[in-house]
Amino acid sequence: MSARYADALAAVAADVDATIGTLLEKNSGGSAADADVVNLWAAMRYAALAGGKRLRPFLVVSAAEICGGQLDLSLRVAAAVEMMHTYSLVHDDLPAMDDDNLRRGQPTVHKKFDEATAILAGDALLTMAFEVLADPATHPDSLIRAELVLGLARAGGPEGMAGGQLLDLAAERHPVYQDDAIMRLQSMKTGALFAWSCEAGAVLAGAGETERNHLREFGVNYGLAFQITDDILDEIGDAVETGKTVGKDQVRGKATFVSRHGLEGARVIACRHIQIAVANLDFFGQKADLLRDAAESLIDRRV
Amino acid sequence: MSARYADALAAVAADVDATIGTLLEKNSGGSAADADVVNLWAAMRYAALAGGKRLRPFLVVSAAEICGGQLDLSLRVAAAVEMMHTYSLVHDDLPAMDDDNLRRGQPTVHKKFDEATAILAGDALLTMAFEVLADPATHPDSLIRAELVLGLARAGGPEGMAGGQLLDLAAERHPVYQDDAIMRLQSMKTGALFAWSCEAGAVLAGAGETERNHLREFGVNYGLAFQITDDILDEIGDAVETGKTVGKDQVRGKATFVSRHGLEGARVIACRHIQIAVANLDFFGQKADLLRDAAESLIDRRV
Repeated sequence: MSARYADALAAVAADVDATIGTLLEKNSGGSAADADVVNLWAAMRYAALAGGKRLRPFLVVSAAEICGGQLDLSLRVAAAVEMMHTYSLVHDDLPAMDDDNLRRGQPTVHKKFDEATAILAGDALLTMAFEVLADPATHPDSLIRAELVLGLARAGGPEGMAGGQLLDLAAERHPVYQDDAIMRLQSMKTGALFAWSCEAGAVLAGAGETERNHLREFGVNYGLAFQITDDILDEIGDAVETGKTVGKDQVRGKATFVSRHGLEGARVIACRHIQIAVANLDFFGQKADLLRDAAESLIDRRV
Repeated sequence: MSARYADALAAVAADVDATIGTLLEKNSGGSAADADVVNLWAAMRYAALAGGKRLRPFLVVSAAEICGGQLDLSLRVAAAVEMMHTYSLVHDDLPAMDDDNLRRGQPTVHKKFDEATAILAGDALLTMAFEVLADPATHPDSLIRAELVLGLARAGGPEGMAGGQLLDLAAERHPVYQDDAIMRLQSMKTGALFAWSCEAGAVLAGAGETERNHLREFGVNYGLAFQITDDILDEIGDAVETGKTVGKDQVRGKATFVSRHGLEGARVIACRHIQIAVANLDFFGQKADLLRDAAESLIDRRV
């Protein structure tokens, strides 16, 4: 990871945490009668401010910056995307889904609070992501706000994250063994939001079709490389360093590029997607150096 | 219930079912590899097309009509509102929430499919509600689309439905005994979406502030009267006729206007809200006759 990328990533993480914190603070002072609603906000903040690399916010902010977008606005879009990502983690961790007790070393939301609160906190985060995007404070042009909503909804819906999670659960019952089926699952479950994060930055900045398409293609291939390196880490990563349970895929009998092609084969495929991602940045010249670094950092990813 | 209201309600129900059916059909033909995603769409359709009075769609369509809105557009908004309502039912029925096995005499989604599919189908319906509203097919003016998204998100989020459901669950552990606490719970859990259904019709039709406010106030008071008559039906209703388990509130020790003021006292309060609702329609003259009938039909509500 280049020093400038590490610095930029940390800066975006701090900024987006502050933005999310402000968006989720707005009702924390509720009256005593509202103690239960205060609890819902607390669960939302617990989930959304639990750390994490904030890769999606970084992609939104960087893509917007390349296209001349304003940082204060792109941070709101980044916060909305991260709320969407967070809701999916909260629901995925539920007993009926992946049944995880820990995330980033901390109790998952349904363990820290309870299952009902976790379901509702996820629902509320998902709903608020759209509230943030539709708010005039995110962009004065309603056409851009409506397009941001539409894109996030498509990335999150049955053809995106929600459908991908269902495929992932189903894959434990009847494993998929085709590369294209694995790729489809991953491009729905995680790829759609990565791709949209990049495109959203361009949309916010009012960029043209060419910019949008290049950033989208960057995001698609970044997302695939990210997922493959995630699977590699699951095989060889250090539990303490990554903050995750490792070896889960093998236990669950989950087909991944690693189980199908071995570690070296998977690395080669990841590198191919990183190359395609980076090639899509040529159009932007040096302005895209940070995104270039972000993609190349996946090669020696350790966390 | 007046004959003209019964006819109009049935017509909207048929139209909005057709609209929802089309919106949720779009991927049902998926390839064999997508059998699991097809299953998600099937669960969404099962939940969203299970009958029901379609009161919220009726309010959207009627309010839009009064303000000169187009039926084909208001049906899309009505479909989005009903998807939002449906998602909340699917999640509220989950074992960790109200733990209901039957809804309208049929197995709930998590019983018919499984819990994970029910959670994801709810998530996907919620997400698609925003997709429908943000789609240019819903209105050519992006300002209206963005405002529809914003209003639905506020009605659904932590200060609306999601927060109200949490209060409702909490009220079983420590019952609320103040009228204003009961009213706040109900205005969040069900009132916010009723109020927004009415206002959304005005927004879609590009109506001014006065129209919006009157329709919103109509919706707020209609919603309160609806909820109180719902509690009355829970006490005296017929399980077969209503298609619901009756007497649930008492078993759960839930404080309602009925438990606090008795049946007659609750009826008086409901009538007061119906009067306020109807008074807000004076502004529109005869054009609002159907909404007037809708509110007055709550007086002798049997289902």
